[in-house]
Amino acid sequence: MTVTDVPGFTAAGVAAGIKSSGAKDLALVVNTGPEYTAAGVFTANRVHAAPVKWSRQVLTTGRLKAVVLNSGGANACTGPKGFQDTHETAERVAAGLGVGAVEVAVCSTGLIGEFLPMDRLLPGVDAAVAALTPDGGRDAAEAVMTTDTVPKTVAVDADGYRIGGMGKGAGMLAPGLATMLCVFTTDASLDAAIADAALREACRLSFDRLDSDGAMSTNDTVLLLASGASGVTPDPAEFTAALTGACRDVAMQLLADAEGATKEVAITVTGAASEADAVTVGRSVARNNLVKCALFGQDPNWGRILAAVGTTDAAFDSDALDVAVNGVWICRAGAAAEDRSKVDLTGRTVAIEIALHAGEHTATVWTNDLSHAYVHENSAYSS
Amino acid sequence: MTVTDVPGFTAAGVAAGIKSSGAKDLALVVNTGPEYTAAGVFTANRVHAAPVKWSRQVLTTGRLKAVVLNSGGANACTGPKGFQDTHETAERVAAGLGVGAVEVAVCSTGLIGEFLPMDRLLPGVDAAVAALTPDGGRDAAEAVMTTDTVPKTVAVDADGYRIGGMGKGAGMLAPGLATMLCVFTTDASLDAAIADAALREACRLSFDRLDSDGAMSTNDTVLLLASGASGVTPDPAEFTAALTGACRDVAMQLLADAEGATKEVAITVTGAASEADAVTVGRSVARNNLVKCALFGQDPNWGRILAAVGTTDAAFDSDALDVAVNGVWICRAGAAAEDRSKVDLTGRTVAIEIALHAGEHTATVWTNDLSHAYVHENSAYSS
Repeated sequence: MTVTDVPGFTAAGVAAGIKSSGAKDLALVVNTGPEYTAAGVFTANRVHAAPVKWSRQVLTTGRLKAVVLNSGGANACTGPKGFQDTHETAERVAAGLGVGAVEVAVCSTGLIGEFLPMDRLLPGVDAAVAALTPDGGRDAAEAVMTTDTVPKTVAVDADGYRIGGMGKGAGMLAPGLATMLCVFTTDASLDAAIADAALREACRLSFDRLDSDGAMSTNDTVLLLASGASGVTPDPAEFTAALTGACRDVAMQLLADAEGATKEVAITVTGAASEADAVTVGRSVARNNLVKCALFGQDPNWGRILAAVGTTDAAFDSDALDVAVNGVWICRAGAAAEDRSKVDLTGRTVAIEIALHAGEHTATVWTNDLSHAYVHENSAYSS
Repeated sequence: MTVTDVPGFTAAGVAAGIKSSGAKDLALVVNTGPEYTAAGVFTANRVHAAPVKWSRQVLTTGRLKAVVLNSGGANACTGPKGFQDTHETAERVAAGLGVGAVEVAVCSTGLIGEFLPMDRLLPGVDAAVAALTPDGGRDAAEAVMTTDTVPKTVAVDADGYRIGGMGKGAGMLAPGLATMLCVFTTDASLDAAIADAALREACRLSFDRLDSDGAMSTNDTVLLLASGASGVTPDPAEFTAALTGACRDVAMQLLADAEGATKEVAITVTGAASEADAVTVGRSVARNNLVKCALFGQDPNWGRILAAVGTTDAAFDSDALDVAVNGVWICRAGAAAEDRSKVDLTGRTVAIEIALHAGEHTATVWTNDLSHAYVHENSAYSS
């Protein structure tokens, strides 16, 4: 179930030769209408790639007819020529589809700082246009994979319409999105402002709460394309909830496939004075290397968790903090409580709960452990 | 050269049996006068240990006659009983020396969340008092070691007076000090306010710029004891400079002995609009796991450096950033420049320079790489 399991969309994924492995590396997703509403959310990193600059610009219109995505190169930190390459890619897609270049978003992922091989990429665009089918979503999802071991897709049935999606990302997973490209499609009929608001809210509650390794990418992009093919205009709140569910589903797939990870960790902060406080505390714990190493070592080291909480400016009294790991409250009132040997950390999923006793708000941040394999995978030359 | 290489100080280091290994684990440093001026700088972590609470309190007087330090347990997150244990330790030292408990600072380091074995610690205090000698500084430096592989000491000769010091710390090395205990001694005659200002400034420019693993400890303490034995009252600025030199020396020893590290990395940010901007950018790069893994892999991955710079709110234009690694300017104007293969990363020391072209300020932040050994050492049970 993916982007093309939604009426009004075709897609393709081809091997253009951008990746030296010969694997699929160029994806195209096309909205066949009748409507072309679109919205996008991009990395908050101030060093952002040429395709991010381009796509943010074209999305000011609130409409898109196609998205072209390549793996094998991020086209980030590539100066004016990098931007020209992105523009040329959009022009080539536009020519193939008979649309305007400003109706084509571009996404790239891969190594930062190198030019894309345009001599191979542009013929790849032509091949992708030729390969477009109503069941090409799986190929498209495969073509955006980098260090991903599996393609990530989703489909959600809502009240008279559907939401489909695909995503990629396995490293540089961090605040303000992750090193990831995601495309969501829907046959709902959406106003551009409603699409935009729904996508921002859905990202805020899903991808923005995923912090695998604290490293924010230059290329993160999440796009929503609405074809209106269902003829259904959903209630904005209901659509936002459905889209949030689809985003969370893809976010959990990213978490499960994060580079070198052996644990999928949900850090839930309760009793916070504000939602922002809860997120701040959760993120601080998620980003603490000593906590992450302890989880890799299956050590319920609540002292490191408290030390991470203590670095934040959230409202709490350090003598009132409770911490549970996988349901065992090993810390109560800022000191040792239940026997830590009761904590079973042999499984892949870990639930950490931190009770601040400072209010009524709650939030969950998801992260991974820090493993030998993470270091290995990310220390290889120019990975 | 250490704390007792300064007139007016005695010290001891003994094995009290706090560590199961039987190694030295209790240190005592005593100021024999004639003056007893003192200052302290403590962790900014809001979850801080009982000895930090105690020492911060007694230092409001601006004077100390002794410092007792133990390894083998942090006495952090131990509630009211933990504070009582610290108080009892100070009382025992005071009784042994014939001074007041409020003239005794206490420092602890080791595992968070467990009580100290007071039945062994208190007799150890008595043994340390009995063992005090004018050349006990080396034993004291050894007694505070945890995962340190070598004791860290320093002595600086200034204009008519001397500064000695000892420190420990190898993990939880982070902003707002590190998991470290440091004691500096001087025979200069200092006013309490001048001692305090000098220590804060020296820490700001040394330990505060060391960010080995982004994890801030609950126990960090740096103390300065001034005996006045030289009869020399130094110029405050000159004393601050000399103390800063001593602190930097110990900071570099901490950097060199950081858990599992294979690289000592100096990140120098130039052309910043403010010193704060320079530190912010340096720290962001220092804390980026992907940059740290790349350095472990001897990969001059400037794209990851730029991505880390881009997450900050410092003033810069992303198209104006230059980056050099070990003297090779592999990034100019935000894009690839000199051949990255020219960068030699085989040595233990790495110099990264980031030119922001936004002003005249500069700062250096020191860090380590992220290695298999770091993960291994910090994933062992309750390390």
